[in-house]
Amino acid sequence: MFYLTIDILGTVAFAISGVLVAMEKKLDLFGVLIIAFVTAIGGGTLRDLLIGNTPVAWMKDLTYVSTIFITVVFAILFASKLKYLRKSLFLFDTIGIGLYTMVGIEKGLQADLLPVMCIALGTMTASFGGVTRDILCNEIPVIFRKEIYATACILGGASYFLLLQFSIPERYAYIAAILIVIVLRLLAVKFSISLPNIYKKQEE
Amino acid sequence: MFYLTIDILGTVAFAISGVLVAMEKKLDLFGVLIIAFVTAIGGGTLRDLLIGNTPVAWMKDLTYVSTIFITVVFAILFASKLKYLRKSLFLFDTIGIGLYTMVGIEKGLQADLLPVMCIALGTMTASFGGVTRDILCNEIPVIFRKEIYATACILGGASYFLLLQFSIPERYAYIAAILIVIVLRLLAVKFSISLPNIYKKQEE
Amino acid sequence: MFYLTIDILGTVAFAISGVLVAMEKKLDLFGVLIIAFVTAIGGGTLRDLLIGNTPVAWMKDLTYVSTIFITVVFAILFASKLKYLRKSLFLFDTIGIGLYTMVGIEKGLQADLLPVMCIALGTMTASFGGVTRDILCNEIPVIFRKEIYATACILGGASYFLLLQFSIPERYAYIAAILIVIVLRLLAVKFSISLPNIYKKQEE
Repeated sequence: MFYLTIDILGTVAFAISGVLVAMEKKLDLFGVLIIAFVTAIGGGTLRDLLIGNTPVAWMKDLTYVSTIFITVVFAILFASKLKYLRKSLFLFDTIGIGLYTMVGIEKGLQADLLPVMCIALGTMTASFGGVTRDILCNEIPVIFRKEIYATACILGGASYFLLLQFSIPERYAYIAAILIVIVLRLLAVKFSISLPNIYKKQEE
Repeated sequence: MFYLTIDILGTVAFAISGVLVAMEKKLDLFGVLIIAFVTAIGGGTLRDLLIGNTPVAWMKDLTYVSTIFITVVFAILFASKLKYLRKSLFLFDTIGIGLYTMVGIEKGLQADLLPVMCIALGTMTASFGGVTRDILCNEIPVIFRKEIYATACILGGASYFLLLQFSIPERYAYIAAILIVIVLRLLAVKFSISLPNIYKKQEE
Repeated sequence: MFYLTIDILGTVAFAISGVLVAMEKKLDLFGVLIIAFVTAIGGGTLRDLLIGNTPVAWMKDLTYVSTIFITVVFAILFASKLKYLRKSLFLFDTIGIGLYTMVGIEKGLQADLLPVMCIALGTMTASFGGVTRDILCNEIPVIFRKEIYATACILGGASYFLLLQFSIPERYAYIAAILIVIVLRLLAVKFSISLPNIYKKQEE
C-alpha cells in the first residue's frame, strides 16, 4: 500500500509535467495525452524491461492508466490557472524524480540487485520518462541541462542505503531519500550549482 | 494461419513504407534495407518486449526477415514506377497501421491483458515502427502530425471489442476493425479532420 | 573466461569512444560518465532485451559498471594526450564494433537462434551503443554515415559461420571474425568504399 501510494503520486507528478510541456508546445488533445502517458510510464517501463518484470507494471491493471487519464483531465482544466508553467513544470518534474528514484530502488531490491545497480535502476526510472518527453517535444533532454539532475537521484539513492546502515527504519529512510532528491535538485537550481569543470587542461 | 497472414501483410506494407521514406532521403542500399527492416519490425518488437514474449517474434524463424528482404528488393525494382511516392507512402503506412493494430490486440489477448491494454498495445504496435522510421530519417514523427493517427488505431481497436459484444464472429470483427482503422485515417486526411483545440482559453 | 575477456575489451573500447564524443561536446563530468556508460552497455542491453536475457548482463554483477568507471577515469586523465580525438574515436569505435559483433553472435547461439538472426543480433549489439551515443550527443548516427559500418559487422559475422564450415576451430574463427570486421571498416574508410548507388534510374 505504502509503495503503491508513492508510485501513484510519482505517476501524477510526471503526468502533470508531461501535460505542461505538451501544452507549451501546443500539441493537440491526443498529443497532450500521449506525452503525459509516456512521461508517466516511461521510467517504469524501462525499469521493468531491464529486470525482466513483464508484462510491464502499467499493463497489469487499470491503476496507472486511469490515474494518468484523470490527472490529464484535471491538468488541462486547471492549466489556465497555472500562470507560471515553467515553474510548475520544474516543481512537478522534481517531485516526480524524487518519488520514482525510490520506486526504482525498491523494485531493484525485489529483483535481488546489488545496491549500486538499484541506484542506477532508480536513476533510470526517474529520468527516462522526462528524457523521452523532452526528445518527443524537441527540447534538450532535462538530464543534459546544466543543473544537477541525475546526480540528485544518485545521491538520494545512496543516502537511502546509508540511512539503512544506521538502523533507521526502512520506511523513514525511504521517505528521507525522496526528500533528499527533491531538496538537492531545488537547491542546485536555486544556487546554480553544477558539476566541476573537467576541461581546464584542454582549454588552456 | 489467418493471424500469420495478417501479420505478414502488415510487414510487407510497413517495409514498403520504409523503403519509400528511405529512398526519398537518398539513403544508400544498406540504409534503405535497415529503415525498411526497422519500420516493419519496430512495432512488433516493442509489443513483444512489453508483454515479455522473448526472443521477439521476428527472431524465432525466417518468416519476417525473408518477407522484408523480398519486399525491399521488389520495392526498389519498382520504385521508379511509383511516381507519386508521397501518396503511396501514405497508403502503405495506413494499411500497415490497420493490420498491426489488430495483430497487437490479438497478442495482448493471448497475454491475458484487459481490453483497454490490448488497444494500447495495438496502437503502439501500429505506430512505433513508423515513429522510429521518421526519427531515423529526421522527419516529424507521423504520430504528431495534424491528422488523426493513433486515434484511428484506438477507435478501430475499440470497435473490435464492441463488435464482439454484438456476437459478431471473431474473424469478421477482426477484419472489420482493420478496415475501420484504414477508413478512419483515409477520411481524416481527405477531410482534414483533426482533434478539438484545447488552447482556446489560454489564447484569448 | 575467453568470452568474458572479449566482452570486457569491447566495453573498454566503447566507453573510451563515449568519453571522446562527450568531451568534444563539452559535457560536464556526469554527462561524460553517462555517455560512456550508455555507449558501452547500450548494445548489450538491447541484445539481452531482445532474447529475453533479464536482468540484463550489466546489472547482474559489478564487472561492467566498474570496468566502465575505471575506463572513464583513465580516459579523462589522459584525454589531453589524445591530440587527435577524431582519429582515436574512430579507432576505438571500430575495435568496439568488432568485439561486440562476436559477443552478440555468441549470445544468439546460446539462445538457439538461426545463424542469420545471430548475425542480426551481433550487428545490433555492435551498433546500438554508438547510435545512442550519437543521438544523445546530437551527431548524425555513425551507422548512417557514408562508410560501410553495419555491413562490416554483417560480413564479419557471416565469415564466422563460413569459417566454422571449413572446420576451423571455434576460437580461431571467433578471433578471425573480429579482425575481419575491424579491417573491413578500416579499409572502407581508408579507400572511401561505400555501397552501390541505387538511385541512378530515378535521377536520370
